[in-house]
Amino acid sequence: MAIATSLQCGDALVIVDVQNDFLDPGPVPVPQGADILPVLADYAARFERHGLPVYAVRDWHPARHASFLPRGGSWPEHCVRFTAGADCPSELELPPCTVTISIGEGTDELRVSAFANPHFEASLRTRGVRRLFVGGLAVDDGICETVRDARSRGFEVFFLRDALRVREREAGDGDRAEAEMIRLGAVPLTALDLSQRAPSSGALLTDLFEIGMLQAYFAAGMTDTAVFEFAVRRMPAGRNVLIACGLEPVLQFLEELHFTDWELDWLERTRRFAPGFLASLRGLRFTGDVDALPEGTPCFPHEPLLRVTAPIAQAQLVETRVTNLLHYCTLIASKAVRCVAAAEGRMLVDVGLRRAHGAEAAVLASRACYLAGFTATSDALAAQQFGLPSWGTMSRSFVEAHASEEAAFLAFVRAEPQRAVLLLNTHDARAAAHTVVRLAPAWSAAGVVLGGVRLDGGDLGPTSREVRAILDAGGLSSLRIFASDHLDEVVIGRLIRQGAPIDGFGLGTLLVTSADVPFLDCDYRLQRYAGRGCTPPAEGQGAWPGVKQVYRLRDSSGRMDCDVVARADESHEGEALLVPAMREGRRIGCGETLLALRQRVATELDRLPPRLRQVGDAEPYPVYLSERLHADCLEAGVFAGVGSGLTASPAPLRGETAGS
Amino acid sequence: MAIATSLQCGDALVIVDVQNDFLDPGPVPVPQGADILPVLADYAARFERHGLPVYAVRDWHPARHASFLPRGGSWPEHCVRFTAGADCPSELELPPCTVTISIGEGTDELRVSAFANPHFEASLRTRGVRRLFVGGLAVDDGICETVRDARSRGFEVFFLRDALRVREREAGDGDRAEAEMIRLGAVPLTALDLSQRAPSSGALLTDLFEIGMLQAYFAAGMTDTAVFEFAVRRMPAGRNVLIACGLEPVLQFLEELHFTDWELDWLERTRRFAPGFLASLRGLRFTGDVDALPEGTPCFPHEPLLRVTAPIAQAQLVETRVTNLLHYCTLIASKAVRCVAAAEGRMLVDVGLRRAHGAEAAVLASRACYLAGFTATSDALAAQQFGLPSWGTMSRSFVEAHASEEAAFLAFVRAEPQRAVLLLNTHDARAAAHTVVRLAPAWSAAGVVLGGVRLDGGDLGPTSREVRAILDAGGLSSLRIFASDHLDEVVIGRLIRQGAPIDGFGLGTLLVTSADVPFLDCDYRLQRYAGRGCTPPAEGQGAWPGVKQVYRLRDSSGRMDCDVVARADESHEGEALLVPAMREGRRIGCGETLLALRQRVATELDRLPPRLRQVGDAEPYPVYLSERLHADCLEAGVFAGVGSGLTASPAPLRGETAGS
Repeated sequence: MAIATSLQCGDALVIVDVQNDFLDPGPVPVPQGADILPVLADYAARFERHGLPVYAVRDWHPARHASFLPRGGSWPEHCVRFTAGADCPSELELPPCTVTISIGEGTDELRVSAFANPHFEASLRTRGVRRLFVGGLAVDDGICETVRDARSRGFEVFFLRDALRVREREAGDGDRAEAEMIRLGAVPLTALDLSQRAPSSGALLTDLFEIGMLQAYFAAGMTDTAVFEFAVRRMPAGRNVLIACGLEPVLQFLEELHFTDWELDWLERTRRFAPGFLASLRGLRFTGDVDALPEGTPCFPHEPLLRVTAPIAQAQLVETRVTNLLHYCTLIASKAVRCVAAAEGRMLVDVGLRRAHGAEAAVLASRACYLAGFTATSDALAAQQFGLPSWGTMSRSFVEAHASEEAAFLAFVRAEPQRAVLLLNTHDARAAAHTVVRLAPAWSAAGVVLGGVRLDGGDLGPTSREVRAILDAGGLSSLRIFASDHLDEVVIGRLIRQGAPIDGFGLGTLLVTSADVPFLDCDYRLQRYAGRGCTPPAEGQGAWPGVKQVYRLRDSSGRMDCDVVARADESHEGEALLVPAMREGRRIGCGETLLALRQRVATELDRLPPRLRQVGDAEPYPVYLSERLHADCLEAGVFAGVGSGLTASPAPLRGETAGS
Repeated sequence: MAIATSLQCGDALVIVDVQNDFLDPGPVPVPQGADILPVLADYAARFERHGLPVYAVRDWHPARHASFLPRGGSWPEHCVRFTAGADCPSELELPPCTVTISIGEGTDELRVSAFANPHFEASLRTRGVRRLFVGGLAVDDGICETVRDARSRGFEVFFLRDALRVREREAGDGDRAEAEMIRLGAVPLTALDLSQRAPSSGALLTDLFEIGMLQAYFAAGMTDTAVFEFAVRRMPAGRNVLIACGLEPVLQFLEELHFTDWELDWLERTRRFAPGFLASLRGLRFTGDVDALPEGTPCFPHEPLLRVTAPIAQAQLVETRVTNLLHYCTLIASKAVRCVAAAEGRMLVDVGLRRAHGAEAAVLASRACYLAGFTATSDALAAQQFGLPSWGTMSRSFVEAHASEEAAFLAFVRAEPQRAVLLLNTHDARAAAHTVVRLAPAWSAAGVVLGGVRLDGGDLGPTSREVRAILDAGGLSSLRIFASDHLDEVVIGRLIRQGAPIDGFGLGTLLVTSADVPFLDCDYRLQRYAGRGCTPPAEGQGAWPGVKQVYRLRDSSGRMDCDVVARADESHEGEALLVPAMREGRRIGCGETLLALRQRVATELDRLPPRLRQVGDAEPYPVYLSERLHADCLEAGVFAGVGSGLTASPAPLRGETAGS
């Protein structure tokens, strides 16, 4: 297991004997000593940035020090105090706060450990230091001694492998010193181990065992083509249709997939992988094919959303991230279309960033919601990344930070004269509505165009009606009312049925966590390797075997009648839903803007059997098997586990609902 | 709204008239024309990388072209075909696949649009191009004409503002041409708009309206100190205790918070923000104080987990991300401790990456689970970032890719001789167990040390007993059995009560989505601004007002008796749980390793009243208010909404459960 650590309070950097006399052309140079100067400067800057102490330990000898040759010592004269040779080289760029610890100040003081100077330990204790990060010159001189003393005093010690050099007066001195330090419990480290934020290529966004399997494929020389399919296994209760989503981020991931040097370095240090195998990862790119349902396509369990055809190592490696992306994006798009249906054309904004599961979820959710028909997002990063319209209001804390609600409204309107949406129910929504009515004429005269008012929580039905009445009576009938706080498609539907005069809804937590259905039962399954089909598992998971295609059958008006899942190598009537998205690692045939995807969702949802568009559970959409796939299933014994009474072909097998 | 777009199929780069004669010291130089060469080279490399076409449009004149002065034209002789002046400068670094389109080849051909050459449109159509990205020299010459023709033919057009120059034969020509292009529907763009993957500083990980409020604070000159507290409002059904988690990522976020140039640039292009305000963001850093419960501390609703004290703009800006991090980390740590309790010491591995909500959720979940007591993670990136132990086995697809299960076992054991965990139930677990027994002696003789076997799904209770019996009978009683597939604390508890001989569990989906409780009702609330307390909302949210501290009272053995939430400015008996984590933007007093945090969780859970450690719902832990805070609550009318019958002080107010 490699050590990765981040700098924290209680850490200190200890730079040992980085002085001119120890560098070429000084009297006692350490080989390649100057190489570590920029590395140490980086470490020092890092500690400085974190407000952590930096110590520079130096030899600071009197002119006739006992270690010098003239006095019978073993060293030429060096690091005599107040000489240029005793100075730190300027390339070290020590931060101003560096504490200098002088060693060997007494004429006969021969100890080389930094702890020989009692001020060192005193300073460490005062400053609460618990972990020392030690670098400098040389491992086989002062450093090993310093580490020994530090360990014996209970400090944790990391020695900075990339910021150390060895003197090697005798061959092997360096190795012996390093082994001794490790024996003492000191831990070797490089700057990479501190690089928690090294830019990830995405290649480590995988289960480590995927890389383990790659190693086994490599060792066995297995390089043939594999075909994997991603599909949802079951329709969860509370959903009637799924919306395929996530292809674009998957393609981006595949296009950019590669291992960076530091990632390979880290893999090496896990000691799980052989060098030859790791070398094979160095040039790895995704060179395979992808076929997929276009984003925004309504789909159903058992229908592959995406097919990867690639050398098995590549296809296996990407399993985790492809699943991660398709699962979440499809989950949220499938939730969001329900909200769009419930809102019956009213404005919808996703405001879920704060309670989404991490930042990436929020950004992916904003995209999925927009695709599903949402109007805008509150999320700045998503707006930036995908060019989404953004929307937002003011928060309760903004009102509270002002002396009065009126003062807050004035300040906000002044700052956003063309779009301000005022939060009404920090204290009392009715009173706030009256305030808005009272102030509106002056604002209007000053050129202000209000964006609307917002009700955050409370009893939204009655409150919105009261506020609407107050605004209308005050001549503000064009002002829109937005509502937020723990909304979902069920609450929105109820409010609308109650006739609540709400023009737009902000949806957060329940939407971006898909709280009623927080996951889909889905997988990325090997269907074929080296031309040979894979038998689906025996234990009742009901997966349909083989490489497949989905055909959608429509009536003359375009309305969806049913889908047929067929073998990919047969042809069937209907529209083939899986289309090429990537060939040999390069995109093709995608090129759709988010607006186009959003249009597809709207169009295709219109073509669903109407019962499937409702929020309540409906009779499932019929998904059949083709005759040949049906035969393959029977041969593989798939339906033994499912217990479905299939008969003729195309044999109806309904999208099962969860719990069935 | 700024345009952000990503390159996609159907895009093409069109480089217009970037030729030596148009660059200084050519005969008809465009001012600063050479500046755009590296910019265009970057664009070209990007299109090349995406496999998208690049067109270079060039003047390619005969020697006596009608535009030349000698023939009565208005230009000096330039770009005569086959001369160096007509060449593209080498700094442009055109990719090999660039298609060259020559214009003005006929002696009297004066049109300057790229569409003057019919091969251009024919090539665009053949290659399915729909969007043109146009740059080069000069806007007020060929480019505007090309854009006009492109628009009239239905192409979408982006003009690359950072890769264009204007000739300005007459002052204002450039502006006029640009206005004309915009009128035609062409969209201005810079490389930044294509930089979806520009390294984010995290500053845009916020709701855009937070920045709107900052602008209002800025305009109003509001710079005083604000105090916000993050707390969970209600204990969800299915939880008895929460585990504070997420402080370390929050501190990292705060330490690194700043706006990069491209982020400010993007904000500017939203047209929501005034230049003076954006300038004030340029140097923004978090310089405030943070007090927090140490990570791993058991906690309860109404108890602030974290307090931010900072100038209001900073404290407001960080609301979204601080909430995002604390919410999810606490959610998962609180779920994970239940799994640890249920597992009664057995090994637990989080394997949730593939179905976590995005990548960040997975990485944060791995950390939270380890902190809660998990043994290891499957997630490579989390293992790298936090130095977590990693663990993994083989997948069903690995077995299926081999000709037989036995071949797969052999290949895997060969690749991982010291740790291989073999998946038994790809086909039939009992048969696979017999295979392992049969092969084990030879492996053992070859020095192989198996890590164990895994059962993925199926009926884990009976299957594990059968497999255990087979392994024991085969002399493999030391081989451990791991189980996975849709496990959570309830299933684990049931398996253990049934006596299933399972030594370790892999938990995925249900854990990392916290599927039974996918969110916590929590908020980050302003408690004080400029020394003035903020009144909590009237509408029944029951938030306790003011800046608070939590005191934990224990019996003589350390067992937790109760907590008292008090005003921060009073002292109270018991252990103060909120401790300083950051002062003036710098960390203090944290310095805890993940191991130490993990130890805290273990120790403190041991000190909980035993009923709270069980998986089933328990009588809530008592959280009282101090006398003074109680008085503040009454004054603020807090309990009117809650309906709690509070009496004397310390007044018991139990952590409510969701639904109450």
